[in-house]
Amino acid sequence: MEFNGDFFNLPESYLFAEVADAVSGYEVLHPDKRVLKLSIGDVTLPLPPTVVGAMRSAAAETGDKKTFRGYLPYEGCGFLRESIKNYYKSMGADVSADEIFISDGAKSDLWNLPDLFKRGLTALVPDPVYPVYAESNVLKGNRVVYAAATEQNGFLPMPDYGVKAGLIYICSPNNPTGAAYTPEQLQEWVEYAIKTGAVILYDAAYESFVRDGKSARTIYSCAGAESCAVEICSLSKTAGFTGLRCGYTVVPKALKLNGVSANKLWYRLKSTCFNGVSYVVQRAAEAAFSAGGLAEIKKNTGYYMQNAKILSGALSRCGVPYWGGKNSPYIWLKCPRGTDSRGFFKELLNGAGIAGTPGAGFGAGGEGYLRLSSFSDAETALEAAERLENFYKTHPISAF
Amino acid sequence: MEFNGDFFNLPESYLFAEVADAVSGYEVLHPDKRVLKLSIGDVTLPLPPTVVGAMRSAAAETGDKKTFRGYLPYEGCGFLRESIKNYYKSMGADVSADEIFISDGAKSDLWNLPDLFKRGLTALVPDPVYPVYAESNVLKGNRVVYAAATEQNGFLPMPDYGVKAGLIYICSPNNPTGAAYTPEQLQEWVEYAIKTGAVILYDAAYESFVRDGKSARTIYSCAGAESCAVEICSLSKTAGFTGLRCGYTVVPKALKLNGVSANKLWYRLKSTCFNGVSYVVQRAAEAAFSAGGLAEIKKNTGYYMQNAKILSGALSRCGVPYWGGKNSPYIWLKCPRGTDSRGFFKELLNGAGIAGTPGAGFGAGGEGYLRLSSFSDAETALEAAERLENFYKTHPISAF
Repeated sequence: MEFNGDFFNLPESYLFAEVADAVSGYEVLHPDKRVLKLSIGDVTLPLPPTVVGAMRSAAAETGDKKTFRGYLPYEGCGFLRESIKNYYKSMGADVSADEIFISDGAKSDLWNLPDLFKRGLTALVPDPVYPVYAESNVLKGNRVVYAAATEQNGFLPMPDYGVKAGLIYICSPNNPTGAAYTPEQLQEWVEYAIKTGAVILYDAAYESFVRDGKSARTIYSCAGAESCAVEICSLSKTAGFTGLRCGYTVVPKALKLNGVSANKLWYRLKSTCFNGVSYVVQRAAEAAFSAGGLAEIKKNTGYYMQNAKILSGALSRCGVPYWGGKNSPYIWLKCPRGTDSRGFFKELLNGAGIAGTPGAGFGAGGEGYLRLSSFSDAETALEAAERLENFYKTHPISAF
Repeated sequence: MEFNGDFFNLPESYLFAEVADAVSGYEVLHPDKRVLKLSIGDVTLPLPPTVVGAMRSAAAETGDKKTFRGYLPYEGCGFLRESIKNYYKSMGADVSADEIFISDGAKSDLWNLPDLFKRGLTALVPDPVYPVYAESNVLKGNRVVYAAATEQNGFLPMPDYGVKAGLIYICSPNNPTGAAYTPEQLQEWVEYAIKTGAVILYDAAYESFVRDGKSARTIYSCAGAESCAVEICSLSKTAGFTGLRCGYTVVPKALKLNGVSANKLWYRLKSTCFNGVSYVVQRAAEAAFSAGGLAEIKKNTGYYMQNAKILSGALSRCGVPYWGGKNSPYIWLKCPRGTDSRGFFKELLNGAGIAGTPGAGFGAGGEGYLRLSSFSDAETALEAAERLENFYKTHPISAF
């Protein structure tokens, strides 16, 4: 027996595991210093009262014979699928409840989605981007080609008809760069997919951070997207569910290949690989999409966007080139010339006690950049802003 | 773009989805009849007070800034891994906490485990058995060969050195036949795996139903198992977690191929495909493994085993050949000669209002058998016993 050799084509550690290790190492050596963790995009606000109340009620139900529930539908509970359908409606998108599949988070579905398609496919993945798109395809023996996201294209690559790919990954608002497509730009991707017979996997995990009224929140605001695009979303950032685990994936019935519906095959796959999301978590998610819940979580995302303003304000004052932070909780800043992103990560950790995430961890195209997350508490963001201003005093901006 | 063609090599529906559809169809046509559902192995007792209490406290923690937790370790929380380590200790098996990975249920890990190994491997799967072993390998393009579980071998196939396979699946106590290996029999499998260089995936989901003091509860009671076997287990049946979702997989550090540790690669895989199990669920699971929790869940498994006694008593009185029900909540009964299992499933549904699971759904070798689950409440089991006795009055036993 042998292991899957493609493991040895991956970086040895998953990016965020690597960063966590580096930070722990620093903390052991400097027990007196407080590290400001602006690295992994983890929320810090507690879950809102509506969500916690629903979860506690659901927990009580599980202890009573009259209300106990065992296995739940593989695809998720009807009550939650209906809530999400209405959430899409509020964005002007028409998605039916039986096109929505509840997951334990976007990552699990992103991992499994390539299995729906022919092995050996070519995946077009933006560079830089959330590492799971490429890593899942590498481990499944697929080919990965990259669409360069650069300063020149505003970190928003557009279709290139010279490139042939079966799966097209789009993440908007983007992790890590914070760049967000407009519906008009996404429409070009939809047309490209339709013309080339490709399928788009659209990661909308950060849609609730769109603030400019112009950027897209769902690919289903594009004509024809229902025939070529799967949308993956998560409550992790929208509702603070990073530790609770709930997401959803939309697989439209109109998305067909050779007359077979992707919706039907995805149900077959999910029923083979998954036994549904915890009941208490599905009730918590339903509460997050209630009127009261939506108001509470909007307040929380607003809080994080205020942090983004504080951090980007400091960078602006220091003259540091950066992107994002406007429709996204992430700020993507440029490292001083000649410093690679892992080097700058260490420099900022040692020099200012701030942990970011090295851009190169998101792909070769991320080299020379660092991601800061605004999911901290306000005090941490304020202190980080101050430390950044001090740090740049001794690190000449002329180096950019 | 094309779909994964291997979907078309699977039955169109996942087995339990198919049974649920047939039962719903019957209920629509016969709204006055109460169907006794002894089909899918779903628990019916509510969660015990210790578990519910822990879950409610954990839910409250998520609403307080001081106790809120975001992302949890991919491999599971330390407190739960320690509890499970101690649970193994109580079975006399020495497993360390960092060899235990917490999952959202055995099914997810069973689905992902083949990705750890070289694509195109050969999997040796018992026939009949839980369908996910074969289906996951089929969908990943692996080859599946079968080990026949028959009346002749007591539904416990033993190693055949003429068969070459990279992965060996063992399920004991077995789903669906209820047969359970002794440690001595398992030792032969371990020796076979070591000699042939294969890896055993041992599904122990029903270990807590062992009652005879002779059957194995973990493969780690065998010498050398830590060098060749992964064990997958679940709280679904042990603690009534079917709707709560928690399981665990043991990947020993001593299991190495070409000098590389499976434990290390499994961590890499999990960190790429999964973001951990819900905090509230992990606290509930920890409570299930506490002294109080263990006493409560033991009472519950005892209740189901009492149902098994009631059902098997009726079958004995009717002279129906059956297996299982002694170290397992499942009873595996023989259909009358000449009736295929799907036919007999319908006959029993129409003639007695009892839904079992057709044996053929677990593999070709299950043809001619039907599985009954004892996870109902006691009243249902008693009524089913009565209905079975009436049914067999008009269905001659001489046909077996």
